[in-house]
Amino acid sequence: MLSSNQVKHIHSLQQKKFREIHRQFLAEGSKLVTEILESPYKVVDVYALADWLKLNESILHFKNIPFTEISEKEMDRITALSSPSPALAIVEMPAIPIIPAPAIHDLVLALDDIRDPGNLGTIIRIADWFGIESIICSENTVDLYNPKVIQATMGSVARVSVVYCNLPEFLSSLDPVIKIYGTFPEGENIYSMKLDPKGIILIGSESSGISPEVVSKVTDKISIPYFTTATARDHAESLNASVATAIVCSEFRRRKG
Amino acid sequence: MLSSNQVKHIHSLQQKKFREIHRQFLAEGSKLVTEILESPYKVVDVYALADWLKLNESILHFKNIPFTEISEKEMDRITALSSPSPALAIVEMPAIPIIPAPAIHDLVLALDDIRDPGNLGTIIRIADWFGIESIICSENTVDLYNPKVIQATMGSVARVSVVYCNLPEFLSSLDPVIKIYGTFPEGENIYSMKLDPKGIILIGSESSGISPEVVSKVTDKISIPYFTTATARDHAESLNASVATAIVCSEFRRRKG
Repeated sequence: MLSSNQVKHIHSLQQKKFREIHRQFLAEGSKLVTEILESPYKVVDVYALADWLKLNESILHFKNIPFTEISEKEMDRITALSSPSPALAIVEMPAIPIIPAPAIHDLVLALDDIRDPGNLGTIIRIADWFGIESIICSENTVDLYNPKVIQATMGSVARVSVVYCNLPEFLSSLDPVIKIYGTFPEGENIYSMKLDPKGIILIGSESSGISPEVVSKVTDKISIPYFTTATARDHAESLNASVATAIVCSEFRRRKG
Repeated sequence: MLSSNQVKHIHSLQQKKFREIHRQFLAEGSKLVTEILESPYKVVDVYALADWLKLNESILHFKNIPFTEISEKEMDRITALSSPSPALAIVEMPAIPIIPAPAIHDLVLALDDIRDPGNLGTIIRIADWFGIESIICSENTVDLYNPKVIQATMGSVARVSVVYCNLPEFLSSLDPVIKIYGTFPEGENIYSMKLDPKGIILIGSESSGISPEVVSKVTDKISIPYFTTATARDHAESLNASVATAIVCSEFRRRKG
């Protein structure tokens, strides 16, 4: 049984303001909740249908996590998804993570004002796939704990460290030997140029690309070549931010072998 | 000025049923409407704010396209976007396109039940970027003319041909020399295997991958390798469908040079 206070509390966590007050966020979806339960995140509460609870009862007991069995009708009242899932968890936000030391030994993604929650979530999932541990976000990047971001990560949020900071300052603080790669139409062909296996991959915002304060920090301009067909000489003007991230990460990792 | 019949008609085109009855679909957004105007699509009507009309009046006159100046308030009544744009067009659906002849001289994408409109739109944009002219969709793939698909193509819908058909039958009809590539966890490493510069790239659905009737048509199983970090031995279980498409297309085109 759900109390109206519980419903109100869950709804409030859809908003950044209340997430920051309570230091909690929501995770929905059978697979996502399972992944969060298995991760170092501290789960505060689980609301789930009877069948799902039966399957996951051992980990809930083992980790000593309070849970409430609810009906599908009750799930409809608290979910933010268009097709409700069998489980919803309230999760504690970890204490503010420390910006990784400027000594970088691998690839790091830096996001300059990514605004679309789906893009941020997808980029986190891409980083997880390619074994990239850290993502640095500019202060205007969409909030990590936005339910749509958490959803789109498909559980990868539990394995990738995401920090927010003043991006130009962070980039300036780096050892100048560290390469900062940014995509530009006039950049060098990523397929044929020399790529350092470590460094920063900078991804610009969906609408305006890499911002002027950040452009000046780029050490290597790269580009993903486009191809035209016999019939159409025109082509897409750009790629979606998460798609471009995927292609760039894939090319860096391919070289690693 | 908008009549209530116009508002009703525009709203009806949000639904597939009415799109099929009227053989019309919606395109919204300044850039998207401009691209559609410049394409071979037949635009039936344009509703736009005064500033946008001023900028685009010459092409509207040149192509003899009826248009209506509306206020921001009126745009709010007809838009399906969360942040309304300055222009909305009603576009004629082209007559049912013919399935490309089985003789294939380049790459073709085949989508096996892609359900998410954002994914289909993004895949069309990727095809356009990489100069892939045709996409073959299974009958259960989301409708091309869904407003969210059109939106996500960012204008690429005007340059890529998308057809729906019985996918297993289409694949069976192909000359057996044509390679059919599908991604599978156990597939060969795409970075190091031999790839034919032409053939079919098969993309499975978001939830269940490539369906059993289609799996048997695959001639070459491929996989995108994942990477793990020193600290996390676990990794994302899969990539988003459009992200996987992007990485595979990029790798095929890279070889083309």
